Amino acid sequence: MSKSPITPRAEDYAQWFQDVIAHAQLAEVAGVVKGCMVIRPHGYAIWEAVQQDLDRRFKATGHKNACFPLLIPMSFIKKEAEHVEGFAPELAVVTHAGGKDLEEPYVIRPTSETIIGHFFSRWIDSHRDLPLLINQWANVMRWELRTRLFLRTSEFLWQEGHTAHSTHEEATDEVERMLRVYRDHMWEVLAVPVICGVKSAHERFAGALETQTVEGMMQDGRALQCGTSHDLGQNFGKAFDVMFQNEEGEREYVWQTSWGVSTRLIGALIMTHSDDEGLVLPPRVAPIHVVVVPIFRKTEERDEVFAAADKIAEGLRDDGLIVEVDKREGMKPGAKYFDWERKGVPMRLELGPRDLEQKAVMCKMRIAELDERGRGKKEILSWESLGVEVGKRLDAFQEFLLERALSFRKANEVEVDTWEEFEAVFANGQSKFVWAHWDGTTETELAIKDATKATVRCIPLEDEGYDASEGKCVKTGKPSTQRVLFAKNY
Amino acid sequence: MSKSPITPRAEDYAQWFQDVIAHAQLAEVAGVVKGCMVIRPHGYAIWEAVQQDLDRRFKATGHKNACFPLLIPMSFIKKEAEHVEGFAPELAVVTHAGGKDLEEPYVIRPTSETIIGHFFSRWIDSHRDLPLLINQWANVMRWELRTRLFLRTSEFLWQEGHTAHSTHEEATDEVERMLRVYRDHMWEVLAVPVICGVKSAHERFAGALETQTVEGMMQDGRALQCGTSHDLGQNFGKAFDVMFQNEEGEREYVWQTSWGVSTRLIGALIMTHSDDEGLVLPPRVAPIHVVVVPIFRKTEERDEVFAAADKIAEGLRDDGLIVEVDKREGMKPGAKYFDWERKGVPMRLELGPRDLEQKAVMCKMRIAELDERGRGKKEILSWESLGVEVGKRLDAFQEFLLERALSFRKANEVEVDTWEEFEAVFANGQSKFVWAHWDGTTETELAIKDATKATVRCIPLEDEGYDASEGKCVKTGKPSTQRVLFAKNY
Repeated sequence: MSKSPITPRAEDYAQWFQDVIAHAQLAEVAGVVKGCMVIRPHGYAIWEAVQQDLDRRFKATGHKNACFPLLIPMSFIKKEAEHVEGFAPELAVVTHAGGKDLEEPYVIRPTSETIIGHFFSRWIDSHRDLPLLINQWANVMRWELRTRLFLRTSEFLWQEGHTAHSTHEEATDEVERMLRVYRDHMWEVLAVPVICGVKSAHERFAGALETQTVEGMMQDGRALQCGTSHDLGQNFGKAFDVMFQNEEGEREYVWQTSWGVSTRLIGALIMTHSDDEGLVLPPRVAPIHVVVVPIFRKTEERDEVFAAADKIAEGLRDDGLIVEVDKREGMKPGAKYFDWERKGVPMRLELGPRDLEQKAVMCKMRIAELDERGRGKKEILSWESLGVEVGKRLDAFQEFLLERALSFRKANEVEVDTWEEFEAVFANGQSKFVWAHWDGTTETELAIKDATKATVRCIPLEDEGYDASEGKCVKTGKPSTQRVLFAKNY
Repeated sequence: MSKSPITPRAEDYAQWFQDVIAHAQLAEVAGVVKGCMVIRPHGYAIWEAVQQDLDRRFKATGHKNACFPLLIPMSFIKKEAEHVEGFAPELAVVTHAGGKDLEEPYVIRPTSETIIGHFFSRWIDSHRDLPLLINQWANVMRWELRTRLFLRTSEFLWQEGHTAHSTHEEATDEVERMLRVYRDHMWEVLAVPVICGVKSAHERFAGALETQTVEGMMQDGRALQCGTSHDLGQNFGKAFDVMFQNEEGEREYVWQTSWGVSTRLIGALIMTHSDDEGLVLPPRVAPIHVVVVPIFRKTEERDEVFAAADKIAEGLRDDGLIVEVDKREGMKPGAKYFDWERKGVPMRLELGPRDLEQKAVMCKMRIAELDERGRGKKEILSWESLGVEVGKRLDAFQEFLLERALSFRKANEVEVDTWEEFEAVFANGQSKFVWAHWDGTTETELAIKDATKATVRCIPLEDEGYDASEGKCVKTGKPSTQRVLFAKNY
């Protein structure tokens, strides 16, 4: 059964990741533009499904979309000291435009806190203008030398939320509210069971007081930061003079937040669910839910099978499903099966002349229990009640993927109390989610990273349910207030 | 009644346009970034409605979305001779990135034919890969010194369709198909009755064999090019080596098309429908369909009125409408009315204690017949059947705006046969849609432009129903095969 052109995970995980993307035609390295990628239609359709769900959640929590300039004056980036330090090495700079050298260069936005801060200062005057809750769907640019499709590219697509509030408390509520929106989207739609927590000072966003994060476990035990939500305090308010008159008539700086997720989420999907046969997608973000493959030997049978396939597809589409009928000529059913499996279509329906007689269809899920011959089990579904049965199976598949990912994560989480044990977990390029005590200093964090390549992924939020009792740092033995999450990361 | 802070059209049309945008909070000039704009939430929501409708139409005609790099190697732009000539003066150039000078500069895409041509050459191999039907929603950059919000900005948002075909005939069918998609969207959704035609050689897209266009008439009689669809022939195929093996096994260059509309459409909406009181929007692209304004004198009345307003809003939302209840404090109903009128909300519902008793609501459309006191007529709608009645009135308003725009256009179209008459139409900065004969040469077109500032907007497609009989050029007296459309343009 090893017909797969995809490198097995056990052999080379990084190559497997590239192979899955290539064979599902999700994206490719642009090559001619350093560090950039092209997102192909099948990959972009996943991003559209992600966008649609998140956009609905953002609007339901009172946010409105807007569009700010792609270019930012270089002087803006320099106004917030930590911000420029964090982003300067990654900037792409426009020095020439409209046939002339520019007096002041522009940078292509690596993120938009600065330019949005500028406009907030024009729009906000009174406490009545607050809170101001804005989101932007955009492309951003952070120059990268080592490209990894979806995970690390010079240009990527994302959304960036930017909000301004009259009190710090309201701003920190917003930071956590949007982290929960991300969490819910990832659990419910992407079937990626992320953990919510706070970043260490070292991993904080450049210019923030605090960064919260949702961290997912990939199949190799590494962590992927799936989204972040920042408490910006009054840092950008002070840099860009964003002030409001409070109810007492005094001028105050606003309290700001920002939060974002990117096309990196497609990387998270791949590394959470896919297997050695290719892409696996949860139905809620699958660009195609069901593929119908017509089967026939003689040309005389073809028209009848095609007609029945179209009718089945139409019925399922009426139920709101996205259905493809694969009528490609000169391609055998088996080749079509592999093709759609590699593209991660959750359900395949096979339809031949015999099925027509029985008014039935053969159903095969993308991941199925194996039969006695080691092949994925199929089942016969009747045309009557097909919509209901298909819907049930897709819902169950969504749930199955989440449960499987959660079981995998739990099986690879360990509490570690000694440095020997800690080093052993991360030896030989391996990684797990390690819950260990840490003295809270950047010095220790960096020492641990030097020794093991593992870093503090997050300090879990209270309701994540992890051990919050005190202890001693796994590296220094100094006091620690709670266990934190260590892992190697992407 | 002249409470409007908006400059009347008759006084200064350009200032009126800016005032409408400012008071509806649609967008503003970025200032700090040359020629760029910020699209504010109320303006961006219109763009989202446009996107949603167009995207549905693109997908229904078999197109898929993808994402190509923002940056294009300078050498790519130079590969198609006419293309570089057309775009070179407007390019923004990245010369420095990641802390280093680049060996080869990149330009920020002014349009993506070149970079997409490059990827098409990688993806297309056989006639089985054709047609390839791709669309991209993106930002593009064309450096402008004279900014006009939505109409002419350095950065703008658009969609660009790019397709490849095995025959020229199939490509030209696609060019016209997508022009019709644009036409239908503009008539049915934007209520902008555009005319379909072909561009003169002089106005053609840089690198195309033919450009088709949809032209709308603005309220000052000028034309606005609302969208274009290009037959690229094999020009980019040859420049980027995009070849396929035909059914006979021979290698051929593909035939390509591209087509686009942009945020300029918001400019078209404004200049087609809005009035001296501010923005007017067709319900199908309005970010808010109905605003409910609660009216009360005593605080005791407030809770009851708010509750009834919320209930009405909820009922209308269940019918799929976007409804706002204006509960702002410290603002009188009259001020709220003006505010929402300036924002172009099609329908206002006023709800006070007396209406509660009568289980009714006062309805006022954004544009209404005047009563004997010169005020817009209102009517009483009962809570029972409110959804149906509101729906009817919004549909009627959509139709009214289209009919009004069409009547205006027809009233300002003239057939002209003498040069004196032609010059007179365009004298004193005025413009109409003039149907006149033209000898078909660029030389004459430029002479006419020099004399009157009017240009050939398009040669109408046959089924537009304009006089297609032969005649003599209005300027040179040379033979002409049909009348063409002249106007000043934006």
